[in-house]
Amino acid sequence: MITRLSSLFVRTLRDDPADAEVPSHRWLVRAGYIRRVAPGIYSWLPLGLKVLHKVESIVREEMEAIGAQEVHFPALLPREPYEATSRWTEYGDNLFRLKDRKGADLLLGPTHEEMFTLMVKDLYSSYKDLPLALYQIQNKYRDEARPRAGILRGREFVMKDSYSFDIDDEALEASYQKHREAYIRIFDRLGFDYVIVQAMAGAMGGSKSEEFLAVAPNGEDTFVRSPGGYAANVEAIRIQAPESVDFAGAPEAHREQTPDAASIEDLVRVSNELYPRDDRPWEATDTLKAFIFQVRHPDGTVEPVALALPGDREVDAKRLEAAMEPAEVVAFEEADFAKYPTLVKGYLGPQVVGSESESKIRSYLDPRVVEGTTWIAGGNEFGTHWYGLVAGRDFTADGVLDVAEVREGDPAPDGSGPMSLARGIEMGHIFQLGRKYAESLGLKVLDQNGKLVTVTMGSYGIGVSRAVAAVAEGTCDEKGLCWPRALAPFDVEIVATGKAEEIFAAAEKLATQLDEAGAQVLYDDRKASPGVKFADTEILGMPTAVVIGRDLANGLVEIRDRRSGEKRSVAVEDALAEVLKEIHGR
Amino acid sequence: MITRLSSLFVRTLRDDPADAEVPSHRWLVRAGYIRRVAPGIYSWLPLGLKVLHKVESIVREEMEAIGAQEVHFPALLPREPYEATSRWTEYGDNLFRLKDRKGADLLLGPTHEEMFTLMVKDLYSSYKDLPLALYQIQNKYRDEARPRAGILRGREFVMKDSYSFDIDDEALEASYQKHREAYIRIFDRLGFDYVIVQAMAGAMGGSKSEEFLAVAPNGEDTFVRSPGGYAANVEAIRIQAPESVDFAGAPEAHREQTPDAASIEDLVRVSNELYPRDDRPWEATDTLKAFIFQVRHPDGTVEPVALALPGDREVDAKRLEAAMEPAEVVAFEEADFAKYPTLVKGYLGPQVVGSESESKIRSYLDPRVVEGTTWIAGGNEFGTHWYGLVAGRDFTADGVLDVAEVREGDPAPDGSGPMSLARGIEMGHIFQLGRKYAESLGLKVLDQNGKLVTVTMGSYGIGVSRAVAAVAEGTCDEKGLCWPRALAPFDVEIVATGKAEEIFAAAEKLATQLDEAGAQVLYDDRKASPGVKFADTEILGMPTAVVIGRDLANGLVEIRDRRSGEKRSVAVEDALAEVLKEIHGR
Repeated sequence: MITRLSSLFVRTLRDDPADAEVPSHRWLVRAGYIRRVAPGIYSWLPLGLKVLHKVESIVREEMEAIGAQEVHFPALLPREPYEATSRWTEYGDNLFRLKDRKGADLLLGPTHEEMFTLMVKDLYSSYKDLPLALYQIQNKYRDEARPRAGILRGREFVMKDSYSFDIDDEALEASYQKHREAYIRIFDRLGFDYVIVQAMAGAMGGSKSEEFLAVAPNGEDTFVRSPGGYAANVEAIRIQAPESVDFAGAPEAHREQTPDAASIEDLVRVSNELYPRDDRPWEATDTLKAFIFQVRHPDGTVEPVALALPGDREVDAKRLEAAMEPAEVVAFEEADFAKYPTLVKGYLGPQVVGSESESKIRSYLDPRVVEGTTWIAGGNEFGTHWYGLVAGRDFTADGVLDVAEVREGDPAPDGSGPMSLARGIEMGHIFQLGRKYAESLGLKVLDQNGKLVTVTMGSYGIGVSRAVAAVAEGTCDEKGLCWPRALAPFDVEIVATGKAEEIFAAAEKLATQLDEAGAQVLYDDRKASPGVKFADTEILGMPTAVVIGRDLANGLVEIRDRRSGEKRSVAVEDALAEVLKEIHGR
Repeated sequence: MITRLSSLFVRTLRDDPADAEVPSHRWLVRAGYIRRVAPGIYSWLPLGLKVLHKVESIVREEMEAIGAQEVHFPALLPREPYEATSRWTEYGDNLFRLKDRKGADLLLGPTHEEMFTLMVKDLYSSYKDLPLALYQIQNKYRDEARPRAGILRGREFVMKDSYSFDIDDEALEASYQKHREAYIRIFDRLGFDYVIVQAMAGAMGGSKSEEFLAVAPNGEDTFVRSPGGYAANVEAIRIQAPESVDFAGAPEAHREQTPDAASIEDLVRVSNELYPRDDRPWEATDTLKAFIFQVRHPDGTVEPVALALPGDREVDAKRLEAAMEPAEVVAFEEADFAKYPTLVKGYLGPQVVGSESESKIRSYLDPRVVEGTTWIAGGNEFGTHWYGLVAGRDFTADGVLDVAEVREGDPAPDGSGPMSLARGIEMGHIFQLGRKYAESLGLKVLDQNGKLVTVTMGSYGIGVSRAVAAVAEGTCDEKGLCWPRALAPFDVEIVATGKAEEIFAAAEKLATQLDEAGAQVLYDDRKASPGVKFADTEILGMPTAVVIGRDLANGLVEIRDRRSGEKRSVAVEDALAEVLKEIHGR
């Protein structure tokens, strides 16, 4: 069936939507693919829905190919299973909660680990039933604090989530690898540039986990790569700590007056002015920076936490957030200092942080602050600092917290060379969940010896609606959308320009022939100016366009390639064959 | 791809689920097609989901065939548009409401009239853009007071809803007819017995409306048919009132003592004993019954309402509920009489109800109580009744309320003969909404004269998940599910029985051949007894089964027809052709 632009439910917009931060958002709205209904909540218009359905088909085919079976869970779910795994609480404000007319607690599912676990428990009871992989393509809900970028980070979105169930770790590893390979095929077919990186398990729990990131300068995630093949989301990097240092002969620490040295920059300057050392000037790397923040636990309690890290490093907010989950990071404000009188702003040292004083707060050290290293650190009195403070001798802490920014050129933790940084959009995430959910919900089967054993699980997600945006983001240009063939709503757009009846007759004929040849055809049959039509053709972004206009008098039509911008004239009688060649690849 | 029962995610159950009231619910659960998650909330297992997807495909094809364009709205919606049309309030407890982290009011969409109206308003502005028809297949939410019968009446369910937009009434009528015809094709293809009946518009507003009901003894809806072709949901029947009677010479009414006559039965007996009339005995049809109930308005206020109807008729609860929408009907309890001292239970007459006394309540008459008719009615004093009370002379009311039960044999309102009653399941509902939503939300376009006119709309729904249950309900038997070919999850099930390798090899071969010939094949490759396998075959309900067992030694296999129960042996080398004939119809 030929789709006519004159009756297609679409309108292109001249102006960017006010809230558009990224190109995919701008163009998907301007091209009439999606429309905003509320913050982070979007409707799909016919063109957008066609792309979404194509993504779904690709995902479904590859899931079926690895023997995963499709099921479908409700989005509206009872509280109890999520209570059993603590996620009812741990999800915090991200969870949409509601009550029904009888007062029962319900939620809108953010992911469905609990439900799948219970379903398998309901049906299966023996090791003979395993391995098992189930999946669904379904609406998910998360009440994001900052929904953004259109459908890139929405509050209602379409996700493919799958779950594997295995009898032991080895079998889980095999299931995980099968999913990993299916994901590679899916992302190859979707046709964008992606990387597979080590990832944090986050709120899902579990051990091994990798992300598939679409490489995109506007991506929310930062990842690293090394020449030796290391790749990780910065959230997941665990830096290699230096070796500890023998501090047997280290001189005693001494506290000195350091006026106006509340910042690291000032401290370095003041130290070089007042207490210069012989061999080389003090640098930021010689100083210890104290960073105080607070965490809000799922039960609502708020607790201050301190971190000491080398003075040349900043804290990476996203790494910190990831490390603190399920607690939420909140700022330690000016006013909060009043509650902890021993904390002297600008002159905070590690001892007080780790001391047994009344105002002791939980404290951590950056992994670079290993035993035996010597530092300039806050004196815990206004206008003073310690010099020669030795880690492990003069101060300790409650643990190590690896949340400092990762820098271009930092060594990869596995020794595979210096890391480079780039940004990406999380498109897929695969986890070895292990037994966390099965244990909480009692999913056990009989093993070969007739003994009940807890099943081990994997969890695998793809952002299906997000993929539409990610592909748009990676392919659009300054003129509009520019779809890869696999996802374009139509294979070809036929544009009739001018007023001559012959032109529309020829366009109609070509459209019909292409349709009969199995192509998906969009036909711009509107009575509009060529300028309007060409602009729309570029905004809408079909891979191939055929312009039928004035040159038809000379027996010619023009074939345009949206990506390259290449235009070529072909004889009207060759147009069908030429377009089919474009569609099917020459 | 052949699906093997040994790895298919399904388990049949021996016992009925505790809450199963109807066969479709029982069998869909026992056959492992669906599973209950919470009241009225169900998960779809692989077999069930395949059926659901087949229904969706049929609906989608027929919608596309009439030029309706598919879009997709969120299920999670902002309050404001529903406030503009009053549905935020009018939906009452049926609406799932929630708040997001910022305190904004959201709802889970019960239907999407508002959203479609706003979307068209956003994109379109001219009569040239019309007619337009849009549809979606999407999750809907209603917090039913009594979710029941599995997926027949759930709280989360899949619906196809479409909307037409037209410039005038004539065009709306044409759009309505197109949808009506598409629905006929859809329900024909789904393959169940259905009727098209006149319906109430209910909470949707609007004028003309028809329902497609699947004929089913367990259906919640009651409908009538007449020999002359009248068909209506009982909720929608407007009975033909008798002609009014000349009461010029009617004697005056007189009040009499009627001890122990608080029920109609007793009143008739007492009247014949104490006040017999000459020509024939008193009957229930001579008496007027007073029925008191209350309505809870969407704003929460509760109001008593009285209805006087012939003593031989009962009130039909569903007709009453439909007539009172959007208000909700609640009982007038014993305790409520205390609040209205002039209401004398058992002796209530129409005068007091309609009088200007302090305790006046809103009152209605059944349409049969036309002007000039004479009745025995309550005396409004304990133990008394009026005789010879004439409607229009001795009493009036605030209006007519046509909610009495409809009886087998009652005359059809259009004079097409006596009505017969049957029960059905509402599968589709089509409405001429008119301008209600377009007016509330300001959807206007320029007409041919450049004048802004309000668009007129139609709304059309199909219960997609309900259709799965309705088809199951209409086709299952005492052994299990029994799918029509169009909806069966698989075309054929191959059952290998016994232990001989040859049997499994032959089964595998036939399965492969059928698969290659394009059939959807379920292969029972399990090591289970023939009894278990045959029982499962019948519960699962594929239209055709091939049993390969002992007779293979004689070169024979058995083809079974699930519906007729017919079994026939065919030569193993003919099996492929024979099964394909079954599938494609001989």
